[in-house]
Amino acid sequence: MSPEPLTQARILEATEDVLRRYGPAKATVVDVARALGVSHGSVYRHFGSKAALREAVTGRWLDQSHAELSALADAEGPAEGRLRDWLAALFAAKRRKAGGDPELFATYMVLVGENSSTVERHIATMIEQLARIIEGGVEEGEFRPVEPTTAARAVWDASNRFHDPAYAAEWSQPEIETAFEAVCDLVVRGLHA
Amino acid sequence: MSPEPLTQARILEATEDVLRRYGPAKATVVDVARALGVSHGSVYRHFGSKAALREAVTGRWLDQSHAELSALADAEGPAEGRLRDWLAALFAAKRRKAGGDPELFATYMVLVGENSSTVERHIATMIEQLARIIEGGVEEGEFRPVEPTTAARAVWDASNRFHDPAYAAEWSQPEIETAFEAVCDLVVRGLHA
Repeated sequence: MSPEPLTQARILEATEDVLRRYGPAKATVVDVARALGVSHGSVYRHFGSKAALREAVTGRWLDQSHAELSALADAEGPAEGRLRDWLAALFAAKRRKAGGDPELFATYMVLVGENSSTVERHIATMIEQLARIIEGGVEEGEFRPVEPTTAARAVWDASNRFHDPAYAAEWSQPEIETAFEAVCDLVVRGLHA
Repeated sequence: MSPEPLTQARILEATEDVLRRYGPAKATVVDVARALGVSHGSVYRHFGSKAALREAVTGRWLDQSHAELSALADAEGPAEGRLRDWLAALFAAKRRKAGGDPELFATYMVLVGENSSTVERHIATMIEQLARIIEGGVEEGEFRPVEPTTAARAVWDASNRFHDPAYAAEWSQPEIETAFEAVCDLVVRGLHA
C-alpha cells in the first residue's frame, strides 16, 4: 500500500524502474502496479493502455533536458555564444544519458524505435529552440538573413553525430571533442552575416 | 565448368548474387563456388577465408562510387561548385543503392556491421577526397585558412544525414531535398573566406 497519491509522475518513475529491471520486452503494466503497491486498474486510469504508458515514459526521457536547453536558447548575449552553449549542453546531456546507465539507454533505444511520433515531437521542440536562437541572431544582424526554421533544421541535421543516439558508441572516442568543435565552427560560421 | 578465368572480380560478383539469393546468414563459400562452377578450394585460393571474402565484397560495394567522386573532387572550377557537386553525387549514389535493391541494401547493412575496418577505410578515402577540394579552395583564397583534413571531417559529419545508411529510410521523404540543400548551404558558407 502506498501512502502518497498516485500521480502520473510517480507512475512514470516506477515504469522506468520496471523497464530497467525486466527489460522492454518483458515489462508489463502489472509489474508497474505491483512496484507502486496499487491495482493495475489504478495505473490504467492515468494511462489508457500499455502503449500509452510506454509512449509517455519515452517522451519524459527525451524531454529531460528541454528546460535547461530552453533557458540557454533564451539567455542574454550574442547568438553565436547561445548557439554554441546550446549545442554543447545538448551533447553533454546525450552523453550523460548514454554513458551513465548503458542498459537503461539500450532500453530507451527500443522504446524510441516504437514511438516515432513522440520522437518527432521531441525533435520539433529542439528545432523550435534552435530557431529562436537563429531568429535573434538575424534580428541583431549577427547572422545572415536566413529563414529561422529551415536554418535550425540544417543546424540540427549538421550536428546529428553529436545528438542522434545512433552514434552513441562514438561519444566516448577521444577524438570526438575535436570533431564536435569543428562541426560547431562550421555551423556558426555558416550562419554569420 | 566455366570457360572464363576465375578472377577476384568474378568471385565478388558471384558472392553478391549468392548473398542476394540466400541472405547474409546462410550464404557460404560452397554456394559461391557452385554458382561459379568451380571447387571451393579455387575460391579459397583468391580469398583465404569466408571472412576475407565477405570483407572484400563489402569493400567493393562501399567503394562503387569512389572513381566518380574522385573525378568530381579533381574537376576544374571554383571549390564551392566542386564541393556541392561532390556532396550531391555522394547522396545520389547512396540513394540509388538504398532504393534500387532494398534487399541487397539490407544484406550489405549486415556486412557493414561486421567489417568495421573496411568501413573506416572507406570513410578515410571519402574524407581525403573532401580534403583535396577544401585544400584547393584554401589555396585559391576562396575558403578561409582551415586545416583541410579537420574541415573535411567536419563536412563529412555535418552531411551524414545524407550519406550514413542509418538514415536511408528518410531518403525517400519529400522534404529531404530541401534539407540537403540547407545543409550544403550552411557547410559551404561555413568554409568561405
